[in-house]
Amino acid sequence: MPDTDAPGVIPIALDAMGGDHAPDEIVAGAVQAVREHGIPVVLVGAPRPLAEALHRHDAAAEIPIVRAEEALAMDEGALASLRRPRSSIAVACHLVRRGDACAVVSAGSTAGIVATGKLRLRGQPGVLRPAIAVALPTRPNPTILLDAGANAEVKPEMLVQFAHLGAAYAETALGISEPRIGLLTIGSEPEKGNKLVKRAHELLSAAPGLVFAGNIEGHDLLSGTVDVIVADGFTGNVALKTMEGSVRYAFAELRETINESRTARIGGLLQKKRIRELYRRLDPEVHGGAVLLGLNGTVVIAHGDSHAKGVSAACVLAARLAQEGVVNRIGERLATTHRSHRLW
Amino acid sequence: MPDTDAPGVIPIALDAMGGDHAPDEIVAGAVQAVREHGIPVVLVGAPRPLAEALHRHDAAAEIPIVRAEEALAMDEGALASLRRPRSSIAVACHLVRRGDACAVVSAGSTAGIVATGKLRLRGQPGVLRPAIAVALPTRPNPTILLDAGANAEVKPEMLVQFAHLGAAYAETALGISEPRIGLLTIGSEPEKGNKLVKRAHELLSAAPGLVFAGNIEGHDLLSGTVDVIVADGFTGNVALKTMEGSVRYAFAELRETINESRTARIGGLLQKKRIRELYRRLDPEVHGGAVLLGLNGTVVIAHGDSHAKGVSAACVLAARLAQEGVVNRIGERLATTHRSHRLW
Repeated sequence: MPDTDAPGVIPIALDAMGGDHAPDEIVAGAVQAVREHGIPVVLVGAPRPLAEALHRHDAAAEIPIVRAEEALAMDEGALASLRRPRSSIAVACHLVRRGDACAVVSAGSTAGIVATGKLRLRGQPGVLRPAIAVALPTRPNPTILLDAGANAEVKPEMLVQFAHLGAAYAETALGISEPRIGLLTIGSEPEKGNKLVKRAHELLSAAPGLVFAGNIEGHDLLSGTVDVIVADGFTGNVALKTMEGSVRYAFAELRETINESRTARIGGLLQKKRIRELYRRLDPEVHGGAVLLGLNGTVVIAHGDSHAKGVSAACVLAARLAQEGVVNRIGERLATTHRSHRLW
Repeated sequence: MPDTDAPGVIPIALDAMGGDHAPDEIVAGAVQAVREHGIPVVLVGAPRPLAEALHRHDAAAEIPIVRAEEALAMDEGALASLRRPRSSIAVACHLVRRGDACAVVSAGSTAGIVATGKLRLRGQPGVLRPAIAVALPTRPNPTILLDAGANAEVKPEMLVQFAHLGAAYAETALGISEPRIGLLTIGSEPEKGNKLVKRAHELLSAAPGLVFAGNIEGHDLLSGTVDVIVADGFTGNVALKTMEGSVRYAFAELRETINESRTARIGGLLQKKRIRELYRRLDPEVHGGAVLLGLNGTVVIAHGDSHAKGVSAACVLAARLAQEGVVNRIGERLATTHRSHRLW
């Protein structure tokens, strides 16, 4: 059993072997989570390198290690991960299943995390497919986009469920009551779009327990007009990656423009601090990562190239979701829809 | 017959009644195209308001009017446009069909233009579906993205054709020989994606006459690593709108950041000119609009809210595509694929 300071406090199970900069940056992130945010963490992975890394931080007494002899490679897909029951991600999921951890955090291969999570934590009752949710940096509150890539093909009913998953995330982690749902498509009129979204529009309009705000187009992704945006995993992933790449492109162009002229550079010195702050706000590492919703346990997927800051932020997000009971809230929402169906 | 200065020069048929700022900004755009770019234009629409607008520019002698008593409303969809054979967009297409104009330009409803174009100009031999192509502002050369919204549902074979349509655009209007083709999807590995793109990947890999560079993800849309990016109309439209919205968002955030502090504003004065130049480069109005490829005639769709500058740029693009023979080039490419098929 993990050893923690406060009796009854259930720690985050942090996969220390997943990610481009594992284990050193994962360990550094764990130390940050513990010391700067008071979040209890256990590290899952190969004991020796982890003990050495903890020692370098003088943190061996603060962060327990749970042994896992294997680790998934970053390019290992879903099938390969199913054959590895003793991988660090599998062991982390197992801790949650046993109640010895309140959530899983991993910066490993997304496909591996999704496959392992589905196999070891299983879907919550009634969940057709778990979905990956990402918080877009809108103001005043983030906007939850899902599915950001777990399901390349979906049925319209799954989009309705994604709305409930996303709404539960917004209610628990963001404290938004009655989150507004938007459906990502290619026009504002209900008859615009492909067969999938047209049918999903009908279902969402009639779904109890959801505040459906209608269609959302690509240029509204960051407008903050809704709290949750639903899409199939293919469209959601393309939209998310396009958004990230475009923002990065705009800033790179801007930086180059500033550097191109001496007078601009002088002016630029005055603004670099503010621009850096802005870039930080849009930085995926700050957001805390993606959340795999719909399993019997909270799973947070940090960016593969996360450094300590990103890992720590993922732990903060995971702790919040676990504390605020996102899994329970999803269960409540889906139970409501089932009861409504039985009225027919 | 239109009256033009140089005998044998075929003008652009400009739909003067389509667009949020029609007819005044359309007329102003025509004047700009004629006077600043030497492109012959005829205006199609209601004679009286057009004559008055031309008179205000003192341009009545330079730009002929072709009468069209009706115009499609901006919210009229495909079905409505089919019932309006005398709309300005229908008459403009008719001029091209008769050989009295070399291309159609319109800032009207996209759905109306696509429906009218398909009905009146018909698809080129072998074209399964026409597609809307947009030039993304990459450097050193633009990147052609298609389909940007004409077909919400496609078959894999259509994506191969879109590759040929886009390649023809890149070859003629951009002078790029052997354009590289990318397939928009959610991972670099061929097995990533939905059924449509996985099958399209196979077909593109085997397609003669195409340089297939493999999968492209959302964050690579503006990286300039390929010359043509193919996607179904739903995904392409979401990606394009997301890109536009994200760039706009980044600039708005940046402007606000600059304005928030006095010292930053002082520095900002030095850069506003350069930032404006950058924003202009990314401004959709500068690009010239979208091109409907695959019909027996060049059709350019300007942004609905185009002003004179955007209209003029669309005319410049249309003239270039017509002069460089994009329709012929598409015919050559598709004839080659047909011959290859017959070898089996």
